[in-house]
Amino acid sequence: MSVTPPPAPAAPDAAQLDAAQPADQGVTAPAGFEAAGVAVGLKSTGKPDVAVVVNRGPLKVAAAVFTSNRAKANPILWSQQVIADGVAEAIVLNSGGANCFTGSFGFQTTHQTAERAAELLGVGPGDILVCSTGLIGSGDETFRAKVLDGTAQAIAALSPDSGPDAAHAIMTTDTVAKTVTIHGDGWTIGAMAKGAGMLAPGLATMLVVITTDAVLTAAQADAHLRAATRVSFDRLDSDGCMSTNDQVTLLVSGASGVTPDAAAFGAALTEVCTALAVKLQGDAEGASHDITIEVVNAASEDDAVEVGRSVARNNLFKAAIFGNDPNWGRVLAAIGTTHAAFDPYEVDVTFNGVRLCSAGAPDRPREEVDLTPRATSVVIDLKAGDAAATIFTNDLTHDYVHENSAYSS
Amino acid sequence: MSVTPPPAPAAPDAAQLDAAQPADQGVTAPAGFEAAGVAVGLKSTGKPDVAVVVNRGPLKVAAAVFTSNRAKANPILWSQQVIADGVAEAIVLNSGGANCFTGSFGFQTTHQTAERAAELLGVGPGDILVCSTGLIGSGDETFRAKVLDGTAQAIAALSPDSGPDAAHAIMTTDTVAKTVTIHGDGWTIGAMAKGAGMLAPGLATMLVVITTDAVLTAAQADAHLRAATRVSFDRLDSDGCMSTNDQVTLLVSGASGVTPDAAAFGAALTEVCTALAVKLQGDAEGASHDITIEVVNAASEDDAVEVGRSVARNNLFKAAIFGNDPNWGRVLAAIGTTHAAFDPYEVDVTFNGVRLCSAGAPDRPREEVDLTPRATSVVIDLKAGDAAATIFTNDLTHDYVHENSAYSS
Repeated sequence: MSVTPPPAPAAPDAAQLDAAQPADQGVTAPAGFEAAGVAVGLKSTGKPDVAVVVNRGPLKVAAAVFTSNRAKANPILWSQQVIADGVAEAIVLNSGGANCFTGSFGFQTTHQTAERAAELLGVGPGDILVCSTGLIGSGDETFRAKVLDGTAQAIAALSPDSGPDAAHAIMTTDTVAKTVTIHGDGWTIGAMAKGAGMLAPGLATMLVVITTDAVLTAAQADAHLRAATRVSFDRLDSDGCMSTNDQVTLLVSGASGVTPDAAAFGAALTEVCTALAVKLQGDAEGASHDITIEVVNAASEDDAVEVGRSVARNNLFKAAIFGNDPNWGRVLAAIGTTHAAFDPYEVDVTFNGVRLCSAGAPDRPREEVDLTPRATSVVIDLKAGDAAATIFTNDLTHDYVHENSAYSS
Repeated sequence: MSVTPPPAPAAPDAAQLDAAQPADQGVTAPAGFEAAGVAVGLKSTGKPDVAVVVNRGPLKVAAAVFTSNRAKANPILWSQQVIADGVAEAIVLNSGGANCFTGSFGFQTTHQTAERAAELLGVGPGDILVCSTGLIGSGDETFRAKVLDGTAQAIAALSPDSGPDAAHAIMTTDTVAKTVTIHGDGWTIGAMAKGAGMLAPGLATMLVVITTDAVLTAAQADAHLRAATRVSFDRLDSDGCMSTNDQVTLLVSGASGVTPDAAAFGAALTEVCTALAVKLQGDAEGASHDITIEVVNAASEDDAVEVGRSVARNNLFKAAIFGNDPNWGRVLAAIGTTHAAFDPYEVDVTFNGVRLCSAGAPDRPREEVDLTPRATSVVIDLKAGDAAATIFTNDLTHDYVHENSAYSS
């Protein structure tokens, strides 16, 4: 098994999170979990490309949310069936191939992956979740052989301290492995994520595995996961492109024996998901700015989200930010396309603390805004109510175009 | 008055259109119209920036369609009132400033522009249409003075053969002036357009003036214009960004004395609008490919349009085309986000005549596709009905990012 270096320390905005050296354990931080990451040549670089996370119990509770794209990869079609009863023993993940639009052969590959893992773990294949990420349309016989081999190798390498290896094995164009661990009152949540492009609500080119040793029922796990992802991953919209392979999975071992306070657990899970979402944003392909769009005084939260997303998906706005140009007119042009309740001529727009537009007319000179830092704040005051939402996005850069213009070659 | 060189010859796909040398007359080709284009310093380059087109009658019929953006520029708010009675005497257009989100001062500028033109033409200000294009938020006292001065200069320069001058005066980042003339059975349609970015349905950063000497009622003009724009400008989606200032105006002089066959006139007007839309696509900022997305065998025309637009707005697809990469997986990932009726696993996708995906699985090797030509064809067969639609778009390039990252500086 090849072990790659530990990830970079946690971001400053996640200072309260556990970033223990040499490597944050992530999915193996909570009791009751083992993991592994191995390299079997799915990636041309030879880096790790197959990961397995196993829940040793005593509970085998699981919940998952999936991409809302109707074009779903074979692992998504499989995992949706596995999760239906709220039980899963393990999850197998590969990078280096999406196994999407690969026909019935591709679905059989996913099925065989689950059978191989189940046989080696002594459980049923219907309790094995599968995730894949990589190029759409790739999933031939060579792919199948490597995934099956990798599944066996990873299970042979399982260890209670290999969360970091698993986090590395799911990376695609990510530049850093992404893990988070947070400790509650007698319980722990650990997580890993991959994703650096095709980041959009519902969800992203994003695979996330979250583990906890708290005691939860399947219904509680599902409710907590949906509540947390709704305000974190679903608010991340790096490039407006929705993936075919996204899956966020929560595995519950109950090994701590502690039933958590529901509010405390929900807040911690949301914190974990938000921290990972910010890590994904910070590693987005080619981006030079991390843009936080806060929409305030909206008539409803849905309105605030719609307005924020309209800006996050506006290429002219995104290109302007790349050029350090606080082009507030493009913000107004973007939000004018929404159906949200507000008067375009009453809106205020503030860039990095400087209000450039007040009630739909110029306010402070744009020269007062310094957009050279990577962290960029845009606040849109709709003056239409008291709801709010925050959307996380990135700028549109030469490097984004470059990285995505020859991905399959 | 500065007169710039004549535009390039009409595109090959508009061979049947009139491209008489030295310059296609455009808006002054039909009888009953005069035009002018002058330079008053709104553009830092000193190029022409104010245009006027006057309808000398005998009819003064007019129709217009406007951007559906709720954030509308002052000239749009004004022109919507002018057009309500189906009558207009003239249209004044400026480049070098959008007069959008410029407060009540900006609206007064538009009002004063109409009053100045009306006074000099001896008509009422309520029959003067106004259009502006340029940077949102720009429209100060200097802008007002120049626009008013330019209006007077242009009216003094009116001539029945200055359509080309007007076409040059409305250019912004356009590299060529865009005019079209087509002759019917005793009547003529002429037109000019500007637009090179922010091109999206409903409509674009696009100003279009169409003139005709055919005899039409206001209701006929309105119906013909809406029918023609629906399948031409509304199917152009270069970068997904909707403008605040777009207006397509049809002025009817009736000077030919000929009442046209409705079907023939409708077809000719659609041909004019489509030819201009293709010219806009071919001049889109930074683009290196003109992409024609044909969606066939859809359950409805609306479905076909929704599916085509989802691809036209997908940055990953657009970046792949820039890289000459026929990445059909990104097409499927894009159309999977729509609500159109089709089975993602039954879809065929063909790039430049090579079917790469058949029934949701790989077909011919992608190496067989040559994407080096600028003209790019993508055909998506939904196998869900017999409706179809074509969407025109462009790729996402380094130059697009560059041109739009410092527009206001």
